[in-house]
Amino acid sequence: MSSTITGVVPPVITPLTEDRRYDEASSERNINRMLEAGVHGLFILGSSGEAAFTADAEREQILESAIRITAGRVPVLAGVIDTQYARVLQHVRVAEKLGADAIVATAPFYALGGVDQVEEHFRALRRATDLPIFAYDIPVCVNGVKLPPALLLRLAEDGVIQGVKDSSGDDVSFRALTLANRKATNKMSLLTGHEVVVDGAYMSGADGSVPGLGNVDPAGYVRQWNAYQAGDWNAVRAEQDRLADLMTIVGAAQNLVGYGAGVGAFKTALNLLGVIETNQMPEPVRRLAGAEIDAVAEILDRNGLQAS
Amino acid sequence: MSSTITGVVPPVITPLTEDRRYDEASSERNINRMLEAGVHGLFILGSSGEAAFTADAEREQILESAIRITAGRVPVLAGVIDTQYARVLQHVRVAEKLGADAIVATAPFYALGGVDQVEEHFRALRRATDLPIFAYDIPVCVNGVKLPPALLLRLAEDGVIQGVKDSSGDDVSFRALTLANRKATNKMSLLTGHEVVVDGAYMSGADGSVPGLGNVDPAGYVRQWNAYQAGDWNAVRAEQDRLADLMTIVGAAQNLVGYGAGVGAFKTALNLLGVIETNQMPEPVRRLAGAEIDAVAEILDRNGLQAS
Amino acid sequence: MSSTITGVVPPVITPLTEDRRYDEASSERNINRMLEAGVHGLFILGSSGEAAFTADAEREQILESAIRITAGRVPVLAGVIDTQYARVLQHVRVAEKLGADAIVATAPFYALGGVDQVEEHFRALRRATDLPIFAYDIPVCVNGVKLPPALLLRLAEDGVIQGVKDSSGDDVSFRALTLANRKATNKMSLLTGHEVVVDGAYMSGADGSVPGLGNVDPAGYVRQWNAYQAGDWNAVRAEQDRLADLMTIVGAAQNLVGYGAGVGAFKTALNLLGVIETNQMPEPVRRLAGAEIDAVAEILDRNGLQAS
Amino acid sequence: MSSTITGVVPPVITPLTEDRRYDEASSERNINRMLEAGVHGLFILGSSGEAAFTADAEREQILESAIRITAGRVPVLAGVIDTQYARVLQHVRVAEKLGADAIVATAPFYALGGVDQVEEHFRALRRATDLPIFAYDIPVCVNGVKLPPALLLRLAEDGVIQGVKDSSGDDVSFRALTLANRKATNKMSLLTGHEVVVDGAYMSGADGSVPGLGNVDPAGYVRQWNAYQAGDWNAVRAEQDRLADLMTIVGAAQNLVGYGAGVGAFKTALNLLGVIETNQMPEPVRRLAGAEIDAVAEILDRNGLQAS
Repeated sequence: MSSTITGVVPPVITPLTEDRRYDEASSERNINRMLEAGVHGLFILGSSGEAAFTADAEREQILESAIRITAGRVPVLAGVIDTQYARVLQHVRVAEKLGADAIVATAPFYALGGVDQVEEHFRALRRATDLPIFAYDIPVCVNGVKLPPALLLRLAEDGVIQGVKDSSGDDVSFRALTLANRKATNKMSLLTGHEVVVDGAYMSGADGSVPGLGNVDPAGYVRQWNAYQAGDWNAVRAEQDRLADLMTIVGAAQNLVGYGAGVGAFKTALNLLGVIETNQMPEPVRRLAGAEIDAVAEILDRNGLQAS
Repeated sequence: MSSTITGVVPPVITPLTEDRRYDEASSERNINRMLEAGVHGLFILGSSGEAAFTADAEREQILESAIRITAGRVPVLAGVIDTQYARVLQHVRVAEKLGADAIVATAPFYALGGVDQVEEHFRALRRATDLPIFAYDIPVCVNGVKLPPALLLRLAEDGVIQGVKDSSGDDVSFRALTLANRKATNKMSLLTGHEVVVDGAYMSGADGSVPGLGNVDPAGYVRQWNAYQAGDWNAVRAEQDRLADLMTIVGAAQNLVGYGAGVGAFKTALNLLGVIETNQMPEPVRRLAGAEIDAVAEILDRNGLQAS
Repeated sequence: MSSTITGVVPPVITPLTEDRRYDEASSERNINRMLEAGVHGLFILGSSGEAAFTADAEREQILESAIRITAGRVPVLAGVIDTQYARVLQHVRVAEKLGADAIVATAPFYALGGVDQVEEHFRALRRATDLPIFAYDIPVCVNGVKLPPALLLRLAEDGVIQGVKDSSGDDVSFRALTLANRKATNKMSLLTGHEVVVDGAYMSGADGSVPGLGNVDPAGYVRQWNAYQAGDWNAVRAEQDRLADLMTIVGAAQNLVGYGAGVGAFKTALNLLGVIETNQMPEPVRRLAGAEIDAVAEILDRNGLQAS
Repeated sequence: MSSTITGVVPPVITPLTEDRRYDEASSERNINRMLEAGVHGLFILGSSGEAAFTADAEREQILESAIRITAGRVPVLAGVIDTQYARVLQHVRVAEKLGADAIVATAPFYALGGVDQVEEHFRALRRATDLPIFAYDIPVCVNGVKLPPALLLRLAEDGVIQGVKDSSGDDVSFRALTLANRKATNKMSLLTGHEVVVDGAYMSGADGSVPGLGNVDPAGYVRQWNAYQAGDWNAVRAEQDRLADLMTIVGAAQNLVGYGAGVGAFKTALNLLGVIETNQMPEPVRRLAGAEIDAVAEILDRNGLQAS
C-alpha cells in the first residue's frame, strides 16, 4: 500500500452544460488534452472538481466517466470530500467499486473536534479501505484546521496515509514536512496545490504538484516538472513566472471571490480555448461574463495560449 | 409561508446503539420526555443532531422517525445541512416528502464565495420549496461566515426566510437584528442557540431558543419561557443561572473539544438519567468515560436532575 | 487592594482641536456632563480614549487633566495599554504619580507568546504596583487573544486582578465568569464593554458597564443602572432598546470601520450636542462629514437627544 | 529616495544582561560577527529585536549603539514599530536623528480601521520624513491585517515606500508582488522574512532576505545569497536545506510559542556559540533552560556550528 504517485496531477474541473448537468463530451476533451500534454495523474472530485456542489449520484457519474476516459493511462485519485467519517466512507466505497487508484480525504469539517479526532478520522479510513490515502491539507475550506506536520509524519510512519496534497498556503510548514519526510522510513508523496509557487515547492523537495491552472496549461506544468527532474532550475523558474502571469486570470472576475473566481476563470479559459462547451458554474455561483471574459482572453493571448 | 414557530425548540440529539446505529427506542423516550415537558418545537438533524456525521439514508430514517414520534404535537424543523445547493436540495426534498414543518439551512460551506453567493443560495432554496426556511447562523461550523443582519432582514422582507437560528455567539449583532425585525413588515422568528444566555436573548426580544441543553433539562427551558411570557424577569434570570451551572457538564470531558465535549456530555447526562441506552458517539468521536461520567453525574445531582 | 468600582464607567473619548491637539475645554464639558448625569467612574485612555493614537507625553497630559477635572467625585481608571510589560510599566508609573484609582491593562500584544506569558504579564504588573488592576479583555485589538475565565478567576483569587472590563463579545464566556465569580472568595468587579447588550450582562450578574456610548447618553446608562439596582427589569430592557437604537450612529459612516466608525460617531454626536468643539480624529483617521453627520443628527433627534 | 538595500539583512536580536538590561558588549560581538560574515544590512528593533518589549529610551539606546557599532559598513534599517501614527512618528524622529538609513513600519495596530486607514498611515509617514520606508507585512502581529499587493504597488509607484519586508507567510501573494514589481516603474526592494524558504523566495525574484536565523548562521545566508547571484540554484537549495534543519532549534522549547520559542532559541544558540553573555529574555517571557538548551546544542552541533 505505498504510493508512487508523483509529478503533475491536475485537479480536474467538472464541465457543465448550460442547464448545469455534467458535460461528458467536454470532460473527455479536457482530460485527453491533459493526458496528451503528459500529466502524471488526475485528481477527480477535488475542490476544483466541484465535489462540494455535486450530489452523490452525480459524483459517481463524474468519477466513473473520468476513469473510463483515462483508461489506465495514468493513476486516478478520487476525492472523497465530505463532512465526517460515515459520509466520507460512502465515497470511499464508490471509489473502490469504480477502480480509483487512491483516495484524497480532508480533515473532517462542519462539526469540530480537535486534532485527536482528526487523527482518528484518518485511522478509521485506513481500517476501512486498502486504497492509498492522500491527506488533503486545505485549512481554508475546513474551518482553518491545519494538518500539523508531526501528525502527517506519524500517519505516514504507521502506513495510514501514503501522500499529502498541500493546499495550506503555509510554505514554512511544507518545508518542515519535506525535510522530515526525507528522513522517514515510510515516505509520503508530497504534492503542492499552489500553482504559482510550484518552483519553491520543488526547491523544498516536493514530489509533484496539483495545479488547478494545470487544466488550462498542462503542457507548462509538465515542462516545469521535466526541467525539475533534469535539475534545470532556471527553466523551472522561467516556466513558473509565465504560469504565475497566466494565473492572473483568477483576478478577472469582479465581485467574485474564492471558488467562483478561481474555477470560474479556469472554465472561462477552457471555453475560450475551445476545450469545453460553456463556462457554466453550479448553483448558486454565477459564471464570468462580458468584460470578465475579455480580460481572461487577453491574459491567455499574451501567454501564447490559443484555441487549437 | 410565514412562521409562527416560537418558544423552546431543542435541537434533538441522535441516540446511537453500541454499534453506532440509530437507536429509535431511546430517541422515542428522549422526544417524548421533551414534549411532556412542554417544548414548543423540535429541531431534527441540526449540528447536535449529528447531521454532519450521518449518511443520507440514515438522515432520512432519523427524520422520519422523529416526525412519526412527534405525531403533530409540535412543529418539526428539519436540518438540511450540507455543503452547497445541489446537496442541500436533496435534503429539502426528503423533508418535504416526510412532512417537516420547516427547514433549517446554513450558509454554504467548504467552497467559499462571498456574501453574494450566500444570498443567492438562500434565494435558490426559496425558489425550490414552499417550506418555511430558517437561516442557521453558525460561523464556527461554516468557515467563519457570519450572516449579516442586513442580509437576513433583506431575505425576510422578500419572503425568502421566515426565521433565524442564531448560534453566532454575537449578541451585539443579535440585538441589532431583533431591533430591526421589530420594525420590519415581514417579521422573522428569531431563535437563539446559546443555552447559557437565553435570558439576555429574551431581553433582546428573541422569539425563542434552540438549546442543546434542552435535551437534558427541557422543563427548565419551558419554565424560563413561561416566565418570559409572564414578564417575570427574576424567574427568567434565576432559571438561567441554574441552567448555566448545569451547562458546565460540557467541561467534564478531558481532551475533548467542540462537538465531542458538548453533545458527548448531553448524551452522557441522558444516559445517566435513564433516557437513552448509551452515550455512544459517531466515528471518529470518542464517548465520555470513567471520571468524566462521574463529573457529569455530580453536576446533574447538584442541580436536582435524577433518573425518574 | 480590593475594588469596589461598580456601576456605569464610561470610557472617556479624547476631544481634539482642529490641529489635532488635546482640547481640554471640550474634555472638561464632556466629563462634567457625565458626572452630572451620575456616572460612577471614568475610564481614561481606553481604546475609545485614543491611547493607541497618543504619544506618551500627551497621554500623561490627558490623564492629568481628567483627574484634575474629576476632582475625586468618582474613581478614575487609567488605561495603561501598550505592547508588552516594560512599556506598560511606564504608563503604570504615570498613573501612580497622578493619583489614578486603578489601572486597566490588556493582554500583551504584537509579540505573541501563549497563555502562560499572558498570566505572567499580569503577575509581573501586580508585583510592580499597589493599584487595583482591571484586566481588559478585548481580543479584537490584541490578535484575537481571549482571556480565559479560568485564568481570570485564578488571578482574582491570588489578588492579582480586582476587576475585568469585558469587551470580548463572548457573552457565553462572560456568563461562566459571573457564575464562578459569585462563588469565589476574592471577587472581581465584572464590567461589560458592550453598550447594546448591557441588559443581558446585568441578567448575567455584571457589576457594571463601560459603554462608549455613555459619552453620548450618560443619563440613559445611569437610569438603566438604577433600574437594575431596583430590580425593575422592564425599565432596564426598555432603556436598552432605546440605547441600542441610538448606537446605530456607529453605522452612519460610509467606508469607515472599527475605531473610526465608532469613536468617529461618538465625537460627531458630542459635537452636534454642543459638548465638544470638533469631531476631529487622530491621524490617519478621517472624521465624519456631510451626509454622515446628518445621519447621526437624525438618530440623536429621534432618540430625544439635543444640544442643551 | 530610492532604496538599493538588497541581500541578507538579519533582524538583529537584542542581547540582555541577567537583570534584563541591554548588553552592549554582547551586541557588539553579535553585530560584528554578522558583518564579518558578509551580511548586506542590519534591521534593528524589529520583532526579533524586541521593539515591542522595550521602552522608548532603551529603544533609542539600542539603535544608537547598533549604528555606532556598524559604523557605516552596511545600511542600518530602524524599526519604528508602534500602534498608530503619532507614536510611530516619534520613533521616526529618533531614527532620523541617529542617522538610520531607512525605517521599517508595520500597518497600524490595536485600533483597527480598514485598508484606507492603513494606506493613509503610510502616506502620512512619507509626508513626515525623507527616509526610505520599508513596509513590514506581518499579519500575525497586527491583528491579521495583510498588506495587499495592490496597495504596496500603489504606494511604491507614488514613492511612498521603497521596500517591503514580507513576513506574511503568504508565498502566493509574494509571487504576485514580485511579478508586478518587475513591471513597475518605481521598483521596491522585496525582502522575505521567512528563513526556511528563502530559496523559494529567490525563485520568486526576492531582492533579499531578513532571516532571524541569520543571527545564528549569517555565513550560511550569505553563501546562499552569493549562490543566488551566481545562478547556482543547487547550492541555494542545499544551503536552505541545511538552514531549515538548523531552524528546528525553535522547536526546542517546551510550552513556549511564538516570540519566546523563536527568539528564545536564537539567543540560546548565540549564548552556546559564545557570542552573547546570556539567553535572558524580556519580562514576562521565560528563557530556555535545561533540556531545552541541550536540544539546541545538539542541533547546532549536527549542523557544524560551534563556539569559535
